[in-house]
Amino acid sequence: MAEAETRRRARGGGGAARRAERSAVSVETAKYIRRNIPNLDILNDEALEIIEANAETVLQEIGVNFANNPGALALWRDAGADVDGERVRIPKGLARKLCSTAPSTYTQHARNPDRSVEIGGRNLVLAPVYGPPFVHDLETGRRYATMADFRNFVKLGYMSKWLHHSGGTVCEPTDVPVNKRHLDMLLAHMTLSDKPFMGSVTEPSRAQDSVEMCEILFGKDFVQQNTVMTSLININSPLTFDDVMMGAMEVYARNNQASIISPFIVGGAMAPVSVAGTLTQVLAEVLAGIAYSQLVRPGAPVIMGAFVTSIDMNSGAPTFGTPEAAHITYGVGQLARRMNLPYRSAGSFCGSKLPDAQAAYETANSLNMGLLSGVNFMLHACGWLEGGLVSSYEKFVMDADQLGALHKMAEGIAMDENGQAMDAIREVGPGGHYLGCAHTQANFKSAFWRTDLFDYKPYETWAEEGARDTVALARNRVKRLLDTYQQPQLDPGISEALSDYVARKKASMPDAFG
Amino acid sequence: MAEAETRRRARGGGGAARRAERSAVSVETAKYIRRNIPNLDILNDEALEIIEANAETVLQEIGVNFANNPGALALWRDAGADVDGERVRIPKGLARKLCSTAPSTYTQHARNPDRSVEIGGRNLVLAPVYGPPFVHDLETGRRYATMADFRNFVKLGYMSKWLHHSGGTVCEPTDVPVNKRHLDMLLAHMTLSDKPFMGSVTEPSRAQDSVEMCEILFGKDFVQQNTVMTSLININSPLTFDDVMMGAMEVYARNNQASIISPFIVGGAMAPVSVAGTLTQVLAEVLAGIAYSQLVRPGAPVIMGAFVTSIDMNSGAPTFGTPEAAHITYGVGQLARRMNLPYRSAGSFCGSKLPDAQAAYETANSLNMGLLSGVNFMLHACGWLEGGLVSSYEKFVMDADQLGALHKMAEGIAMDENGQAMDAIREVGPGGHYLGCAHTQANFKSAFWRTDLFDYKPYETWAEEGARDTVALARNRVKRLLDTYQQPQLDPGISEALSDYVARKKASMPDAFG
Repeated sequence: MAEAETRRRARGGGGAARRAERSAVSVETAKYIRRNIPNLDILNDEALEIIEANAETVLQEIGVNFANNPGALALWRDAGADVDGERVRIPKGLARKLCSTAPSTYTQHARNPDRSVEIGGRNLVLAPVYGPPFVHDLETGRRYATMADFRNFVKLGYMSKWLHHSGGTVCEPTDVPVNKRHLDMLLAHMTLSDKPFMGSVTEPSRAQDSVEMCEILFGKDFVQQNTVMTSLININSPLTFDDVMMGAMEVYARNNQASIISPFIVGGAMAPVSVAGTLTQVLAEVLAGIAYSQLVRPGAPVIMGAFVTSIDMNSGAPTFGTPEAAHITYGVGQLARRMNLPYRSAGSFCGSKLPDAQAAYETANSLNMGLLSGVNFMLHACGWLEGGLVSSYEKFVMDADQLGALHKMAEGIAMDENGQAMDAIREVGPGGHYLGCAHTQANFKSAFWRTDLFDYKPYETWAEEGARDTVALARNRVKRLLDTYQQPQLDPGISEALSDYVARKKASMPDAFG
Repeated sequence: MAEAETRRRARGGGGAARRAERSAVSVETAKYIRRNIPNLDILNDEALEIIEANAETVLQEIGVNFANNPGALALWRDAGADVDGERVRIPKGLARKLCSTAPSTYTQHARNPDRSVEIGGRNLVLAPVYGPPFVHDLETGRRYATMADFRNFVKLGYMSKWLHHSGGTVCEPTDVPVNKRHLDMLLAHMTLSDKPFMGSVTEPSRAQDSVEMCEILFGKDFVQQNTVMTSLININSPLTFDDVMMGAMEVYARNNQASIISPFIVGGAMAPVSVAGTLTQVLAEVLAGIAYSQLVRPGAPVIMGAFVTSIDMNSGAPTFGTPEAAHITYGVGQLARRMNLPYRSAGSFCGSKLPDAQAAYETANSLNMGLLSGVNFMLHACGWLEGGLVSSYEKFVMDADQLGALHKMAEGIAMDENGQAMDAIREVGPGGHYLGCAHTQANFKSAFWRTDLFDYKPYETWAEEGARDTVALARNRVKRLLDTYQQPQLDPGISEALSDYVARKKASMPDAFG
């Protein structure tokens, strides 16, 4: 801490350094999406009220477990819950009342202020895939992920115009001991990108390390007064909160850092096979989890999360991009808006082993429902493959290209005079064509979304160039992006202090794998 | 005609024959989709009113051309329009008033009454790809389509549970003379499938042939009293109605057969580059076209169509599955509902040369917007490839599988006691799992949409089986479907009469190509 303070001071007033950082931005990043289109409200008010009433019944009559967490049980008891062993039964209305202190929107600051994001409201912030132990690329196939892969994915995220957020565990660097990974991962996000990022949640101590590294990067006072991390806290569905995840959340809440409180549900296994039943359980879990975050620190920023997939009832495999997942995603969006909380769901979900047509159908289904269900923070927005076991290099850039389409879709329809284009219709008239008219000339550059990847060449040209499919085109794009990557500037003192912190922390621990 | 009457009588009272037909149904076809979810209304009322007012201005001040069609000009003059040469200027309000006699829904009868479809309202009827001169399959690649391909696609459509309609020109049989193709195509739809189908529109005389063949299949009285064809009438955008398409439409309207009146627009070429301008032109064109159909025969069934793509302004190639196409599709849906007319749009659109990830992203985007924009008749719902130049065997079954997901999505969320699943949540409780609980056992068979195609096997199993991608799996499915195809029964007298009609017509004409 003392060192962090020293480094902060070493950065001086910061003006010159910050200007240097800003001028070093070499790649374009789009502003986070601000929706100008409506959400799809799939449930009517009566249905929503039934689900909300049922969730309160679940909390009061069945309750939730807070495992190995006497501190949590004490907070709940003091707040008026009925605590019986590890079971917490929450009287109707209490959890919702506690949730009301959570902010409806919050700003997550990036070290480059132009890349800070506002999470909530009608905004949508996009972050890459999280958690896979494997990677896949067209040339080497599927293999365990390494720290080199991790750095590559952070670089790809930094280079992607349509990603607003650097994410967290873009893949698991399995060549680094489990107890030291978080240090290398955070260092990569902090130094290879200038976009906002996520903290470690695998141990409360690692959450603490994440906070301390942020204090070096942003300055201690800044971290205490602002949110600089949004981290993923999964609930052990059904209705169980384990001490590891809750411990990490407690660290973040006490430090004013944001948590996504998120049920993790494979439908039919961790929740009922029915959509309405799953919505009820999701709401009960989120009410309890967010209420607890507010018991730890009223006003702590949180996101209402829902990771919900359906299941192949023959094989037990999770399935993605399905209509049931869409129903749930739309429904939770409505429940989140009624709680006035930011919402996390959807992503580039797919079950396919390859970045093929199955992967793309499933992903497009999920991205579309994510946009239209009012999601505010979309984790896994690109790069997810094989049910989340794999981060795919090619799919990362394929999905990221589609994220550009979401931006354009969210803009809605311009109804100003230029948009109405009556002069153009008059100028061209029956039987004419618009390619050369004044309105087209004035607007064609920005009129249509443009892919950076897809092929629209004439058949003959495409055939002569090798008849490449999307994955082959994506392979080229991955190489081009990594070849042209340039690290964003960072104050050398801060960079050195971060490396020192990581080296010191690593030296203080034995290696642990698994 | 006389012959048709004879054949009709030969079928006798029809009871036994119809029962025989029905019992011969060997494949399952889903009922057309009845939406239990809301549409996405992307435009507010103010925007819709602006577009509607602008469209009326276009009709009154700019007008539309009815080319080489003195009969149409006379009808318009009598109705009160200002006719100047081929230009028809329509006073504000007149076109909309004329459109009001068109039915808001109609039934298109199939020869198997279980397969008849109701088009309009909250329904969605799915029909396959229409028009490509090429076909593509994994083994032989891209080649000109033949009549053998045409028959194969009709068989695949018949075998597809999620297709309600056999379509029309599922590919262009380029080995049959242009002036005789329609006869073979109709014969294939009538004999190889028992789903509803489309008539020929390439010449008024071919529309007449279509009507006469239907009179053989259904009986002359039945055809005059019922709608047994829905045919595709494209408008020559911008604002032009050619005599060939209009001539076919006139034949259909006089015979109480349905027409889709559909602008065909590549945005930036045949309409302004802006979405609101395109919506204005689409509405003006459809108002004029549908009004004209009602001048020909008040009450004639019609569908308000919109085929609109965006364009790659560099190459001029049409692009698919784009946000601008989605904006237009959602907007036209709202305009159609305000006119109380059935709506045709969307489909398995893509620009890709292969049934790869690009194709699937683009198609999924388009299918999702089709469902949520309130489309009632979706032509091209499966099998479209390469901007509509190609009917793809593999993509046909890939897309058709996704159509099953649309059915489930449209069902919405069950809110009955079983759906709420409170007993299941009670039974399982915190930390349990749902796989064995009573509610799961009772519901798992129908709880989740099931793919007939996608792979969800464990990685090792999938790798041992050859690490197949979606196209390879689809190739197998195409073969299996064609291998197990069984022709639906048809009264032998009718079948013979249809063949006789085709042979006689063909003998009466010289061959014409192109």
